[in-house]
Amino acid sequence: MDNDTDIPVTVIGLGLMGQALAGAFLKAGHPTTVWNRTTSKAERLVAEGARLAPTAGDALQAGSLTIICLTDHQAVQEVLDATEVDGTTLVNLTSGSSAQAREAARWAERRGARYLDGAIMAVPPAIGTAEAVILHSGPRPVFDAHEPALGALGTVVHLGGDPGLASLYDVAGLAMMWNVLNAWLHGTALLGTAGVDAATYAPFAQQIATVVAGWLPGYAEQIDRGAYPAEVSALETDARAMAHLVEESEAAGVDTGLPKLIKAMADRSIAAGHGAEQYPVLIDEFRTPTHKKINDRDTPEP
Amino acid sequence: MDNDTDIPVTVIGLGLMGQALAGAFLKAGHPTTVWNRTTSKAERLVAEGARLAPTAGDALQAGSLTIICLTDHQAVQEVLDATEVDGTTLVNLTSGSSAQAREAARWAERRGARYLDGAIMAVPPAIGTAEAVILHSGPRPVFDAHEPALGALGTVVHLGGDPGLASLYDVAGLAMMWNVLNAWLHGTALLGTAGVDAATYAPFAQQIATVVAGWLPGYAEQIDRGAYPAEVSALETDARAMAHLVEESEAAGVDTGLPKLIKAMADRSIAAGHGAEQYPVLIDEFRTPTHKKINDRDTPEP
Ligand SMILES: NC(=O)c1ccc[n+]([C@@H]2O[C@H](COP(=O)([O-])OP(=O)(O)OC[C@H]3O[C@@H](n4cnc5c(N)ncnc54)[C@H](OP(=O)(O)O)[C@@H]3O)[C@@H](O)[C@H]2O)c1
Ligand SMILES: NC(=O)c1ccc[n+]([C@@H]2O[C@H](COP(=O)([O-])OP(=O)(O)OC[C@H]3O[C@@H](n4cnc5c(N)ncnc54)[C@H](OP(=O)(O)O)[C@@H]3O)[C@@H](O)[C@H]2O)c1
Repeated sequence: MDNDTDIPVTVIGLGLMGQALAGAFLKAGHPTTVWNRTTSKAERLVAEGARLAPTAGDALQAGSLTIICLTDHQAVQEVLDATEVDGTTLVNLTSGSSAQAREAARWAERRGARYLDGAIMAVPPAIGTAEAVILHSGPRPVFDAHEPALGALGTVVHLGGDPGLASLYDVAGLAMMWNVLNAWLHGTALLGTAGVDAATYAPFAQQIATVVAGWLPGYAEQIDRGAYPAEVSALETDARAMAHLVEESEAAGVDTGLPKLIKAMADRSIAAGHGAEQYPVLIDEFRTPTHKKINDRDTPEP
Repeated sequence: MDNDTDIPVTVIGLGLMGQALAGAFLKAGHPTTVWNRTTSKAERLVAEGARLAPTAGDALQAGSLTIICLTDHQAVQEVLDATEVDGTTLVNLTSGSSAQAREAARWAERRGARYLDGAIMAVPPAIGTAEAVILHSGPRPVFDAHEPALGALGTVVHLGGDPGLASLYDVAGLAMMWNVLNAWLHGTALLGTAGVDAATYAPFAQQIATVVAGWLPGYAEQIDRGAYPAEVSALETDARAMAHLVEESEAAGVDTGLPKLIKAMADRSIAAGHGAEQYPVLIDEFRTPTHKKINDRDTPEP
């Protein structure tokens, strides 16, 4: 091969995402073979230079690397079960759980295929730009060997050898996204009752989120050490302010579910004796499964 | 007065925070009068050049601007009720609710004082540096007249004429802080079960929080327009991924309270017909008081 873009690739699954992935490979100059259950979805890509394989098995043999992007892991199983995968490299970008990813990796190993599991943290129009973050997990040498080709799809990251990591980072990242959005929506609702519009409050919320995000690497050291000295403030002080948040939310007539859950987590940690320690001591509450918690949870009103 | 730092100021209340405030005024060169119920707390400041007033009333007359920073609004009431405040300017940096702030503003107006309510978003050691954000609300001309002196305390901001705004922004900002921290703790607990340490995950969480924070001004426009077209993704798609978050959390044996609350908010909005709209449509859920919600909430297991 003369250069990276000569590497032949295959894309199995031409839904919204699969079409974007194949399109990005074509744009980068890769000889691209595609397959989809419904062949009509390949038309635009064929017009752009893709080769449509008659079967999934045929498609797999064409690329030195095969991206799979179907609805779910069950669809992947249905397509691959009937197909020879020995000697191929599969990068499964289908969304699923970490358990499904580990199961698929074991299946691939038994069948003689190299396997990476991935998660796409982007929408189809972003594919092919640096903005599209695509997480990968599984054997590092497999990722390293194919990173040049994968790079055509976006910012590609390898997280570790455990094939479940991409799914776990994906849901953890989404949880961060929803929490930032919910905190902002709560604040917007609260300030809206005082006549402040959303556009006025948003830059303030943005700044706080960004500043607090900057604390995380430092706080992480406390967690990895397992020691939580109250360097800047104690959990007890936070809990008093949490009570104000609940009261303000009640007085304003906005939702109190989220403020009460925040306070209940802190109260439980204080009840366990951690009031004089710093916020990250709450990790113990997050590590404990909900059903194992003995204190009554501050449940929202019906 | 020759320059801004010649302006005489008064600080009432010399707890941890009041001492830091008075210290910052002294450092900036302001003639500073202080008063505290327990006079011994003034000793260090007097050694640094502060004047200790014999009564709160005497202290009030000495400054062209008086900062009050006591435990709570009740303590403020106790100190000021017996004191002549006519013609003075009071900046109350004592923590309290927006209702207490509005009440104090009315009280001050009746007694002939100019009044600003404030909230300190900083710890005492940060006071006097740009890092210390101090929010103010109340009449804009009062803030403008005293901004040069207030600037000695940190980054001072005026939010609007409603004296309750500083308290509301304060709790909304704290809510953002706790939500970012909780989302990060949840992700740290989840990834910890796969052997990922906190320091490894933190930069990823930081990046997501920062990127999502950058979306808020754009999303705010949707809220102010009251229209939520699914430009990048639909709430239904989020809800499906939320189900994965709950499942992964359950499978990993970590807390599920927060994931379930996130999903319950989205499910309620989808049940109300908003599944095809974009995430900020959830503002309607946050605007509705919890007790007015008719659907069963997905309550955590006992
Ligand atoms: N779209 C996004 O914004 C986005 C973002 C991140 C991740 N993802 C993930 O990417 C994956 C694909 O999403 P998408 O948006 O492309 O979905 P989509 O448009 O609904 O496409 C689904 C694809 O799966 C195929 N498929 C489903 N069941 C099959 C079966 N039993 N046998 C063979 N093929 C089957 C479909 O084939 P037919 O054409 O024949 O029906 C189609 O190619 C999903 O796991 C999704 O979670 C999507
Ligand atoms: N410390 C922080 O990190 C921080 C951060 C942001 C906001 N704040 C807010 O700042 C305010 C003061 O906090 P702090 O940390 O300085 O508290 P603190 O160290 O406990 O000091 C409390 C102050 O209030 C006075 N006081 C209480 N009750 C009184 C009464 N009935 N009559 C007269 N004086 C009374 C105390 O006087 P004595 O000395 O005579 O007891 C002392 O000066 C609080 O509203 C707090 O929420 C603090």
